[in-house]
Amino acid sequence: MTTDEQAIRAVIGEWVRASCAGDVSTMLTLLADDMLFLVPGQPPIGKQEFKAAWEGPMKSAKVATEAEVEEVLVSGDFGLTRTRVAVSITTPDGNTARARGYTMTLFRRQPDGRWVLARDANLLTPEP
Amino acid sequence: MTTDEQAIRAVIGEWVRASCAGDVSTMLTLLADDMLFLVPGQPPIGKQEFKAAWEGPMKSAKVATEAEVEEVLVSGDFGLTRTRVAVSITTPDGNTARARGYTMTLFRRQPDGRWVLARDANLLTPEP
Repeated sequence: MTTDEQAIRAVIGEWVRASCAGDVSTMLTLLADDMLFLVPGQPPIGKQEFKAAWEGPMKSAKVATEAEVEEVLVSGDFGLTRTRVAVSITTPDGNTARARGYTMTLFRRQPDGRWVLARDANLLTPEP
Repeated sequence: MTTDEQAIRAVIGEWVRASCAGDVSTMLTLLADDMLFLVPGQPPIGKQEFKAAWEGPMKSAKVATEAEVEEVLVSGDFGLTRTRVAVSITTPDGNTARARGYTMTLFRRQPDGRWVLARDANLLTPEP
């Protein structure tokens, strides 16, 4: 495994830990300023909208995420990952929503050498 | 626009034309051998499964695709595109299924300089 792949996998691990802890400020440091999240049936979601969601409706939710990185491809300053994800979101009323599937994510190496998420396609589907 | 971006946009144009013409052999030349299509709710689809679908169930369908490339990002031998797609598939019984949304695609520069599709995340949702 190359050091780039190790670094990108470490960012994914940090991302999962931060999302499960509701640690928005850490999550934001892992996102490029021009970050776009793509999800089915919606316009792309930018970094500010992501921040607003996690500081708003998501703030009182408890998120549990499992992520298995199936591949990391690297060329130049781009890393492309395919990850199997299972997520559950429990709201204060006790309801839990579960989803499962793949994410395909573009990581970009910053001038300081850090890797950050730059684009993310979320293909998860709800589970019963 | 860089020559890499122009070349990648030309591949997308060729891909759309080939899919609308049912020209499977041209489509296959535009796919990396390790190509993976990601769609919600299914395991990744490889090049051989793609070929089997287009030589089988899709053979008698008429496909109409519109694609608007919103961005092309390039680093090293990787190109990452975000494209708004509208597709309709009409089967011989006259039924038409429509879907619309984004694709996020990884293109890879081959040793001979050609760009091919290597990974594709399909976020389209059905339309009424």
